Amino acid sequence: MAKEEKEICRIEEGGTALRVLDQRRLPAEEAYLVLRRSAEVAEAIKTLALRGAPLIGVGAAMGLAVAVANGEDFAEARERIGSARPTAVNLMWAMERMEKVYGAGEGNVVERLRDEAERIREEEWTRCEAIGEHGKALIEDGMGVLTHCNAGYLATGHYGTALAPIYAAMEEGKRVKVYADETRPLLQGARLTAYELQERGVDVTVICDNMAASLMAAGKIGLVLVGCDRVARNGDVANKIGTLGVAIAAKHYGVPFYVCGPRSSFDDSCPTGNDIVIEQRNGDEVTTRHYERRMAPEGVGVYNPAFDVTPKELITGYITEDGIDKTK
Amino acid sequence: MAKEEKEICRIEEGGTALRVLDQRRLPAEEAYLVLRRSAEVAEAIKTLALRGAPLIGVGAAMGLAVAVANGEDFAEARERIGSARPTAVNLMWAMERMEKVYGAGEGNVVERLRDEAERIREEEWTRCEAIGEHGKALIEDGMGVLTHCNAGYLATGHYGTALAPIYAAMEEGKRVKVYADETRPLLQGARLTAYELQERGVDVTVICDNMAASLMAAGKIGLVLVGCDRVARNGDVANKIGTLGVAIAAKHYGVPFYVCGPRSSFDDSCPTGNDIVIEQRNGDEVTTRHYERRMAPEGVGVYNPAFDVTPKELITGYITEDGIDKTK
Repeated sequence: MAKEEKEICRIEEGGTALRVLDQRRLPAEEAYLVLRRSAEVAEAIKTLALRGAPLIGVGAAMGLAVAVANGEDFAEARERIGSARPTAVNLMWAMERMEKVYGAGEGNVVERLRDEAERIREEEWTRCEAIGEHGKALIEDGMGVLTHCNAGYLATGHYGTALAPIYAAMEEGKRVKVYADETRPLLQGARLTAYELQERGVDVTVICDNMAASLMAAGKIGLVLVGCDRVARNGDVANKIGTLGVAIAAKHYGVPFYVCGPRSSFDDSCPTGNDIVIEQRNGDEVTTRHYERRMAPEGVGVYNPAFDVTPKELITGYITEDGIDKTK
Repeated sequence: MAKEEKEICRIEEGGTALRVLDQRRLPAEEAYLVLRRSAEVAEAIKTLALRGAPLIGVGAAMGLAVAVANGEDFAEARERIGSARPTAVNLMWAMERMEKVYGAGEGNVVERLRDEAERIREEEWTRCEAIGEHGKALIEDGMGVLTHCNAGYLATGHYGTALAPIYAAMEEGKRVKVYADETRPLLQGARLTAYELQERGVDVTVICDNMAASLMAAGKIGLVLVGCDRVARNGDVANKIGTLGVAIAAKHYGVPFYVCGPRSSFDDSCPTGNDIVIEQRNGDEVTTRHYERRMAPEGVGVYNPAFDVTPKELITGYITEDGIDKTK
C-alpha cells in the first residue's frame, strides 16, 4: 500500500493549513476540511471528523503547528486541542512532544513544530507497517477475521493498526474474510472499515454489533483484531464501546482476541483500566444521529459512553511495532 | 394495566377487518392498518408492522378468520399467512388451532374461526399476566433490569412476556430501572420498548446493543429478562438477534438471565436449537433502513439473521404461565 495513495491528513499552504478528510461524511462523500485555527482543529476532533487514536495524535500535532504558524499562542492552542477528547492517550502524548520542541531547540519555532508533527506522522506510519508485519503470522489463508470500529488507514493515515495484519497478510497472497461490526452509534465499522477494505479489494461483510456472537457460535471467526485508545500499565484496554462484549464472546468461544496498537497508545502512568476516564457523549448520537427521524421517544434516558474497558484477562495478546506480546 | 387501554390488534367491521397498530411507524406515529385479505396480513407480518411472537400468533389467527369471512379459501389463506415468517412457533401453533376449528365443530364456520382467534388472544393475555405474577419475585426494589428487543404489550397485545414481571413488580410499588438494548437493525428496543415503558411511567434508559457488557461490568444490571420466539425441547432458545451476546455477557458477570414466554412458544417437536430455522433478512435493513442515507458502501456484503440461538447452559431459568422453571 503506497503512502501516497490517499493522504487524509496533511499540512498545506506553506504550513498555514491542515487538510483532513471529513470522516463524518463517509462513505457517501469524500470531502476535505481545511483547518487553520486551534478551535477548528479541536472541533474536528470532538465531532469525529478527525478520528482514530493514532490519527488524532498526528492531526492534533499538525493542527497545533498550523495554529502557531497563524499567530496563535502556543500554550492556549495546545490546551484547546489537547482537551478535545479525554480518552485517547495519543492526543496527550503528541501534545507533550510538541511542547518539548516548542520549549527547546534551534531555529524557527514554527518550522520546528511542523517538522515535529511530520516526524510524529512518519513514526506512526512506520509503526503501523511493523504491526502489520508482526500480526500477519496470526492470519491463516481463508480465515474469518472480526474487527470492531475502525482501526485502519482511516484511523492512522496509513495501513492502520487492527487492519494492518489483514493488509499485510493479503499482500502475501492470503485470502481473508473480514467481518466488520457496524459499531453503533457512530457506525465507524459500516461507514469506514467497510469502505476502506472494499476500496482495497478485501472481502468484507458488515454485521450489526449484536451479530458477532452468532458468527462465533457458527465457527466463522478465527481471529478478532481490534485497535486501542489506551492501554493501562496492567494491560487493560480502553477501546471503542462494544469491544468488551466482543472480547467476552471471543473468550467464551475460544477465539483469539488481539489488541493492535503502537506503543504510543500504552500509558504506563495509568495503573489499570479503572483509572481511565471514559468519555460520555450526547444521547442524540444514539437516538437521532444518522437517522431520518428520531428513533426513540422524546425525553427517554440514554447511556452513551464512547469507550469501554476490556480487562487484560480477556486479551490473548498485544500486537505492537515491537512484535506480538502475550503478557503485555 | 387495563386490557382496554390500547387495543393494538382486534377484529372489526363485523368480522371482516383486522385493525392492527403499525409498529414500523413507532415511536413517531401511532397509525393503524386495516387488513382484509390474507396477503395483507402476511405482508404486515413479513414487514414487522405486526410483530412479537405471541402477537403474531394472535394477529395471524384473527387475520385468517377475517380472510375467510371475506370469502377466501381457508387452506390458501392459512398457507399464505402461516409461511410469513419461519422462526416464530406461535404462528404455526395458531394456524394449527384454527385448522382444527375449521375442520370440525358446529354452526357457522366464519363465526367459529373468529371465536377461536379471540380465544387465542384471551389465553395469551391470561398467560402474560401469569408470567408477570411469577416473574415479579425476581425483581428487587431499585434493581436495574436489562431487556433486549421488545417483549412487552406491543409484542402480545397486553402486558407482555419479558416486560410482564417489570409491570407486575411496579404494580406492587417496586422501583425498577430498565435498560433497553436498542436492538439493531430494526430498533425494537429504542422504538417500542422505550416507548411503551415510558408511556407507563417506567424509568427506562436506551443503550446501543454493544453497551450492555459495560453496564454489567459496572454492576448496574441485576437481572436480564428476554422473550423468546421458540424454545426447543432441550431448552435452547431462539430469540431476536443479539440475545446470545447478552446471555454470554450475563454468564460472564454472574447476572441471572431469564427467558420469558408462554408455553405456546415451547416447541417440543424441535429437539435442539440447531434444528431451528433462522430467518435471514435483507441486508438493506442493516445498511439503509431508518437512515437518512445509506451507511455502508454500495455492494458490500451484509449478514442479517433475524434471530440467534442461546444454548440452555447460558439460561438461568424460564418464566412461563406455570411458574419459574430452572431446568426447562
